[in-house]
Amino acid sequence: MSTLRLTSTHTDLPLSPTARTTVNRGRARARTDRDDLVGVLEAALICHLGVLVGGVPMVLPTAFGVDLDGPDSGGTLYLHGSVASRSLRAAPDLDICVTLTVLDGLVLARSAFHHSMNYRSAVILGRPRVVDDASERVHALDLIVDHVAPGRAATLRPHTRKELVATSILALPLAEASVKIRSGGPVDDDADVDEGGWAGVIPVRQVRGAPEPDAFVPAGTAAPEPRLP
Amino acid sequence: MSTLRLTSTHTDLPLSPTARTTVNRGRARARTDRDDLVGVLEAALICHLGVLVGGVPMVLPTAFGVDLDGPDSGGTLYLHGSVASRSLRAAPDLDICVTLTVLDGLVLARSAFHHSMNYRSAVILGRPRVVDDASERVHALDLIVDHVAPGRAATLRPHTRKELVATSILALPLAEASVKIRSGGPVDDDADVDEGGWAGVIPVRQVRGAPEPDAFVPAGTAAPEPRLP
Repeated sequence: MSTLRLTSTHTDLPLSPTARTTVNRGRARARTDRDDLVGVLEAALICHLGVLVGGVPMVLPTAFGVDLDGPDSGGTLYLHGSVASRSLRAAPDLDICVTLTVLDGLVLARSAFHHSMNYRSAVILGRPRVVDDASERVHALDLIVDHVAPGRAATLRPHTRKELVATSILALPLAEASVKIRSGGPVDDDADVDEGGWAGVIPVRQVRGAPEPDAFVPAGTAAPEPRLP
Repeated sequence: MSTLRLTSTHTDLPLSPTARTTVNRGRARARTDRDDLVGVLEAALICHLGVLVGGVPMVLPTAFGVDLDGPDSGGTLYLHGSVASRSLRAAPDLDICVTLTVLDGLVLARSAFHHSMNYRSAVILGRPRVVDDASERVHALDLIVDHVAPGRAATLRPHTRKELVATSILALPLAEASVKIRSGGPVDDDADVDEGGWAGVIPVRQVRGAPEPDAFVPAGTAAPEPRLP
């Protein structure tokens, strides 16, 4: 699915066994292999950030970048945003949650109860670190661009001082995480199967359309390859 | 995009103007038209639920159903889950956040700073109501099935008592919400445009594959129509 594989020397690390990342519901779908986390990080184009703002667990979609060999335990997930963002300002003093979800299919069973979805999801918890170091900041921003368009960061001009000052970057360790994966068809009650009717999976996937260059792109300039089929 | 339009008599309701749902960052992308909220509810197949669990703003992907004429102010969004679910058990005593995100494109600019995404997102906040009424519970479960496969609920057998006992249902008013939409190409600095190079949008969309009936579907049984192209 991705044109660039995330690589790491940490591939033998198990996922976190803390109480709050132990999957209670649907244990059969829980995964503890670090490769499964890497697979979700590779397949997802966006994540959903959960952060407590004024007592409310706000959930906001955002871009991200990943360095599996980053400086944090288990590697590093990077988030960025405006220095004025409420959610990013609130984050460093509290635990946050980053959730990535890849929807793979609609599971239509013979009863409402057994309807489900096929998906791969990761929930990552932790106290984020504000990235202050100049070179780590540039590295993080490059990773965020390269996550959606591998290799693109190296083709762009350097960040300006003004752009860097306007940007907050948070680092979240990839240490405390849980992964759930559901695949396969519906699991129906025997009595319902005997009744007949259609049941199965409607596969769902994210695809790209033809690149749409803006009005200023010189004729013949090749479009970059994004991270999806 | 959807085969079933959500309909409502509340279409003239403005979206909430509370402080916590007023968009601070990216005001140009904020929408206050209720039709925009309805559009996001129609296009999204899943939502991300934010709920405070043990002091952490947990974010979990989940299915949902919508009744724009539901009993709550502005209409009702329904969530369901196991009665044993930590997140659903924690929810009724606290405000929750439900976020829906539809990714429409990757916006590749001439600088890292102006990279963006085209998307439609809705953030809905509120104190959820536990749905106890028997007929509202069945209605909610029907809406959740019909959200992914319009009309399917009516073709399924009734819920059993055991299934209903095992299922928690929460109702969230569609009253306090914000919607953000970004569309169009990159907004580059003039100096960067002069340097040439490719910039534009890579459209992204969710599509379905061919239905995959399970091994027990009688030959010739038609597959249901899901809510996506």
